[in-house]
Amino acid sequence: MEYIFFDENSNIKGINLPKSQVGFEKMCKLCSAAETLFSTKGFYETSIIDISKKARTAVGTFYTYFKNKTAIYNYLVKNYYAIIHRQLAQKTSHCVTRYEMEKEGIKEFIRFGQKNPHCYKIIWGSSHVDPEIFEDYYTNFAQGYISSLKKYQNIYIDVDLSNIVWCLMGVSSFIALKVVFTHKSISEQKLDQLADDIMHILTEGIFKHKPKQRKKDP
Amino acid sequence: MEYIFFDENSNIKGINLPKSQVGFEKMCKLCSAAETLFSTKGFYETSIIDISKKARTAVGTFYTYFKNKTAIYNYLVKNYYAIIHRQLAQKTSHCVTRYEMEKEGIKEFIRFGQKNPHCYKIIWGSSHVDPEIFEDYYTNFAQGYISSLKKYQNIYIDVDLSNIVWCLMGVSSFIALKVVFTHKSISEQKLDQLADDIMHILTEGIFKHKPKQRKKDP
Repeated sequence: MEYIFFDENSNIKGINLPKSQVGFEKMCKLCSAAETLFSTKGFYETSIIDISKKARTAVGTFYTYFKNKTAIYNYLVKNYYAIIHRQLAQKTSHCVTRYEMEKEGIKEFIRFGQKNPHCYKIIWGSSHVDPEIFEDYYTNFAQGYISSLKKYQNIYIDVDLSNIVWCLMGVSSFIALKVVFTHKSISEQKLDQLADDIMHILTEGIFKHKPKQRKKDP
Repeated sequence: MEYIFFDENSNIKGINLPKSQVGFEKMCKLCSAAETLFSTKGFYETSIIDISKKARTAVGTFYTYFKNKTAIYNYLVKNYYAIIHRQLAQKTSHCVTRYEMEKEGIKEFIRFGQKNPHCYKIIWGSSHVDPEIFEDYYTNFAQGYISSLKKYQNIYIDVDLSNIVWCLMGVSSFIALKVVFTHKSISEQKLDQLADDIMHILTEGIFKHKPKQRKKDP
């Protein structure tokens, strides 16, 4: 996993950001060691000594950057968030329509899950490690998504945008999870067919014939 | 939480099911203590001694029913599964159309999340405790859902049913999570309006105008 050199304004709880590239490289080694250990042995079975040992750094170095074990976990979750956002932005930058953007977004989300199947363990597992990290991750994700959809509001059906966003987050997360469970690897062709299926569902709705007109709210 | 007296064929890993009602009541006390401790202190911070103490039983009683701490965690996840299924079945039994069934299902799912906000901690946190428990939960849920949709297949659009099912699971899980994060409690009226919004999305699709015809797979 690549780690982001967050700037000082990121203000991640329990983190002292490094001042130099050399410091950042040490921090990355610690993050990589922690990510491997958390996703194999688990958060609670891993000690700060284990992380420092695996990263080949002194325990003191750990405390230079991280207040405690929860802080490095928090950093990993924030890093996933930043990496996923950056990749989604890159992969959708050429898209002309929102349809294409949603489709490319779903594909990239599935690819990310394939490359980093333990991301569920780290992100969803945060509900167990620290509920605040978990809630922050999803509420921030939703807020960012809602902001980005606002300028396209007239394209979407007339319901609360936040409900569309949470539905889309659920769809991407669960389809990527399905692929983690069922495919060791997925070809780009199969991925495209799968994304077509999902976009078909999101575009046409799940029912062949519209079963009932929606009652208008009073 | 109510606990299910699973029958012998349930074959839950690491569990010796009780033979009598008295035994079952002891088991329930242990489950209730474990559920409270896992969702407050966390799985790893809780010991079998803590659970037994809170349940006011001897440590030996714990081992009569559960092989270890992971086994009781597994039982809790399986119990959620059984309770959710039973409640969904009850709440949708009067429904005439699949539209109504999906809507009532979403409402019940949100109610369940409201009443048991720590269910995410236990179910999603299982990815951290034991990946097999986590995968079993969702693949079994999906298989059951797919089986129940099969007889209505002609009602749904022409895509792989499993993709519809994983989308629906994602939508319910994330909308219920949104409500956990944003509402301490939700009135039946607001719940109905929210479910209407979600059903509108699932029925009409997210876009106001169909942006593009789906390419047919070759």
